[in-house]
Amino acid sequence: MSSRILHPGLRGRLMSADLAAALIHDGDNVGMSGFTGSGSPKVVPQALARRIDDAHHRGEHFRIGVWTGASTSAELDGALAKVNAMDLRLPYQSDPQCRARINAGQMDYIDVHLSHVAQYVWFGFFGPLDVAVVEVAGILEDGRLIPSTSIGNNKTWLEQAGKVILEVNSWQPAGLEGMHDVYYGTERPPHRKPIPLVHPNDRIGEPYLKVDLDKVVAVVETHHADKSAEFSPPDATSRAIAGHILDFLQHEVKHGRLPAELLPLQSGVGNIANAVLEGLNNGPFKGLTAYTEVLQDGMLEMLKSGTLASASSAALALSPAALAEFNADLDHWRRRVVLRPQEISNHPELIRRLGIIAMNGMIEADIYGNVNSTHVMGSSIMNGIGGSGDFARNAYLSIFMAPSTAKGGAISTLVPMVSHVDHTEHDVQVLVTENGLADLRGKSPRKRAELIIQHCAHPSFRPELQDYLERARAGASGQHTPHLLDEALSWHGRYLKTGHMR
Amino acid sequence: MSSRILHPGLRGRLMSADLAAALIHDGDNVGMSGFTGSGSPKVVPQALARRIDDAHHRGEHFRIGVWTGASTSAELDGALAKVNAMDLRLPYQSDPQCRARINAGQMDYIDVHLSHVAQYVWFGFFGPLDVAVVEVAGILEDGRLIPSTSIGNNKTWLEQAGKVILEVNSWQPAGLEGMHDVYYGTERPPHRKPIPLVHPNDRIGEPYLKVDLDKVVAVVETHHADKSAEFSPPDATSRAIAGHILDFLQHEVKHGRLPAELLPLQSGVGNIANAVLEGLNNGPFKGLTAYTEVLQDGMLEMLKSGTLASASSAALALSPAALAEFNADLDHWRRRVVLRPQEISNHPELIRRLGIIAMNGMIEADIYGNVNSTHVMGSSIMNGIGGSGDFARNAYLSIFMAPSTAKGGAISTLVPMVSHVDHTEHDVQVLVTENGLADLRGKSPRKRAELIIQHCAHPSFRPELQDYLERARAGASGQHTPHLLDEALSWHGRYLKTGHMR
Ligand SMILES: CC(C)(COP(=O)(O)OP(=O)(O)OC[C@H]1O[C@@H](n2cnc3c(N)ncnc32)[C@H](O)[C@@H]1OP(=O)(O)O)[C@@H](O)C(=O)NCCC(=O)NCCS
Ligand SMILES: CC(C)(COP(=O)(O)OP(=O)(O)OC[C@H]1O[C@@H](n2cnc3c(N)ncnc32)[C@H](O)[C@@H]1OP(=O)(O)O)[C@@H](O)C(=O)NCCC(=O)NCCS
Repeated sequence: MSSRILHPGLRGRLMSADLAAALIHDGDNVGMSGFTGSGSPKVVPQALARRIDDAHHRGEHFRIGVWTGASTSAELDGALAKVNAMDLRLPYQSDPQCRARINAGQMDYIDVHLSHVAQYVWFGFFGPLDVAVVEVAGILEDGRLIPSTSIGNNKTWLEQAGKVILEVNSWQPAGLEGMHDVYYGTERPPHRKPIPLVHPNDRIGEPYLKVDLDKVVAVVETHHADKSAEFSPPDATSRAIAGHILDFLQHEVKHGRLPAELLPLQSGVGNIANAVLEGLNNGPFKGLTAYTEVLQDGMLEMLKSGTLASASSAALALSPAALAEFNADLDHWRRRVVLRPQEISNHPELIRRLGIIAMNGMIEADIYGNVNSTHVMGSSIMNGIGGSGDFARNAYLSIFMAPSTAKGGAISTLVPMVSHVDHTEHDVQVLVTENGLADLRGKSPRKRAELIIQHCAHPSFRPELQDYLERARAGASGQHTPHLLDEALSWHGRYLKTGHMR
Repeated sequence: MSSRILHPGLRGRLMSADLAAALIHDGDNVGMSGFTGSGSPKVVPQALARRIDDAHHRGEHFRIGVWTGASTSAELDGALAKVNAMDLRLPYQSDPQCRARINAGQMDYIDVHLSHVAQYVWFGFFGPLDVAVVEVAGILEDGRLIPSTSIGNNKTWLEQAGKVILEVNSWQPAGLEGMHDVYYGTERPPHRKPIPLVHPNDRIGEPYLKVDLDKVVAVVETHHADKSAEFSPPDATSRAIAGHILDFLQHEVKHGRLPAELLPLQSGVGNIANAVLEGLNNGPFKGLTAYTEVLQDGMLEMLKSGTLASASSAALALSPAALAEFNADLDHWRRRVVLRPQEISNHPELIRRLGIIAMNGMIEADIYGNVNSTHVMGSSIMNGIGGSGDFARNAYLSIFMAPSTAKGGAISTLVPMVSHVDHTEHDVQVLVTENGLADLRGKSPRKRAELIIQHCAHPSFRPELQDYLERARAGASGQHTPHLLDEALSWHGRYLKTGHMR
């Protein structure tokens, strides 16, 4: 196995996951690799969870802060959350056990724009990073690291951590070498320069991660598969959403507001986003590009069909079947896919320059176009904002989408007022549900409300929304964004009390 | 007077304001110069207001869309709002009559991030721009235009409008020539390139605005002063806010999180912001820079004292007295002040690169750190988001500030839940009132709530906020951002009913 570890000094630091986990202490901030199910360390977090669980059984205090790229796998977030090992988690999670701990008030969670994370660490805003635990696909003779299936914040963790633990995963194909583009030109202000990327597929950095070898305290060998989620096959609802978006993009091309080959696509996480990609793949477009933070199955299909010519991403979020297919033909994909650190995949400078078409899922939107991507009923976190704000704010076009109802029709995802705001009315241009699409560009709040109710709301909730709007227009304290404050959140309150918004 | 108009062809298009206003028609979208009280056209809008008022008296339909840089003067927004001439206004306003029309539901208003406006027009998202009415300080022999005391969106209006009306204002000092830097390197995606600005004081463009001379349908001469607001002298409250910010910045320098000469300052509009600048001017810092969208009196004082070495801005928002002083020594200021188009002064790429310290006023914040900059009691617009989002999202440090109470103590500016969100918890790092400063960096929502209540809230509202937090922690449906939805907006509702939040 250790043919993946060509540096003799690092080979000398090989040890078991348990010994490596013993180098992590109570109160440490630990930067872990991982962005979606891809590229997170597989064995050290589990060994660490055992170590912490044991300490807890002995009555000892042992909790850590865990910083990652984005969400990770059950082997990381799940294992650590299960034993209540985390004091603090940032910047994004989507693990059921982790979520449950946060919403029970048993751990702190900071939900951060993915493009902000690395720089906040460089600036010292999150305090010191004690340990980095980073999965790599291999170590070169000179100690440079071949990144794994995600880059996320690994460059930053390796640079900033006091100690580094490397997991060398021989399950990851050797052919990943050369697919990555790690940009080392970032600086702290006032020394920053323009980032020289002008096309989604440009390579502006190096294919390897660097690390100060003196900081590497452990190297652990693994042979474990990435475990990304499977997608549900598109259903009528997600197909309808995809159809509306396809029609809209064609309409924009026809009216000269988009070039025929569109502009680089960003696509969010989740089933709906994946279905929209399938829809695009069945549409008339060819030779598109993607500049996104996760490459899902739907995008791989688009690359295979030629709908997409190339894709840039921070991670491969492929289902096991799609990943196997991808890994089988890496020489082909290496010319079409670039994996980048997330401060580059999500950089406002680049998103604005490239003119991205951003398509993200949401929990709910209100009649004035404010979007909630993160909270259920105002108080509980679902996942986090992830990169949706980086993209929505700086995009050429910012689209949010969701089915018009949730929980079997008990919840309307279009409400009088969202219970939490992640994307304000200033950043939301298009809303889409299976019922239709509301183009909010150049519309005042009152006009937006009419469009959203008419085009997006579910017929079973439409009359109540219309009624709210009319009464607010009659009775609100002001008519710019008419609201009845006593009622604005009553739909959510009703759901909490009765299990239904109506 | 017409020595300011050196181009013979344009001199031939000289006419009265009334004749020029007659070239604007019902339903037109009109792009006007103006950013704060500076550089807006002085006579055509008033002539247009008379023309529209006459039409209304004749029973004719005559309303227009008015697009500007930001707020303007009473001669523009005030005059047009008075006669109900505007169907639609964007992207920012602060005129009492205009605000009253919007809040009465008599006109539409679209509140847009200032950095988004120009590109939305280039992209065609707001529809066609029929007429541009732009104040300039002079016209060169070859037809290039010397900009006035603000640039705002003038480059875009001149490029995009079907017809152009120029107001040549001989009141503006000839010495303004050379102070501006108009960047013509912006493109629509996919043709965008990095913007080559790396220091706040860099000049990357040209000192003149260009216009297709065939589009110029009228040139009107004026000799009218800019009328910017006077500032109230700092009081104990604003001095206390300034003091907390000064202490914080010194603390950050001491801990190595800011360089000794800080990073470029952005300062919002209003009295509080002006007082903070006075505070900085009395502090220990020297040789600072500013990269901001408005240059207020406080910044001029800092330039005079050497606290500021240079300033970049989209407009001079100086009181009449400060403006007179500025105009008397333009040769001196031309080396220290650069005026830019607002898509450059507020560009996310540049704000992120330069690492701005952003300091903006707010209407209210909630205990979890969400900020409302625009709405009173959820429904009425105050001014608009302006550039606060451009700066807050991309800043190195994002500070929001306000007195802890408004309306003589009847309103707490710290509330359980804001009635409108402009800056989400993800974009607000520091909150300041006269009572203290809450440093929210690296803090989960629950921890933020404790800091905000303890450091920022007014003592007379602190116990109620604490009580809300405790009951929410006991009874909310989730503990990430604990809220009692039935109560979250009840403080606002109570104010509307009783005139007091308590
Ligand atoms: C918003 C988001 C959760 C939607 O995910 P999705 O897979 O497309 O959507 P689904 O319809 O499957 O909904 C996911 C869950 O939220 C629930 N939900 C959806 N809308 C809801 C609402 N208005 N109220 C309560 N629950 C809701 C669903 O019931 C489902 O819960 P379940 O798994 O317990 O059944 C997801 O897009 C997200 O986390 N976004 C934020 C991050 C982001 O946008 N990143 C983009 C850059 S990668
Ligand atoms: C938020 C903003 C209005 C504060 O302005 P300011 O001059 O510092 O603040 P003031 O304390 O004088 O308040 C302005 C008005 O709002 C009212 N106000 C303030 N807080 C309030 C609250 N929570 N509820 C109701 N009214 C409130 C004040 O009473 C005052 O009204 P009045 O003029 O009728 O007395 C101003 O900063 C703004 O418009 N910001 C948005 C745009 C922006 O940030 N641009 C920055 C880039 S330039």
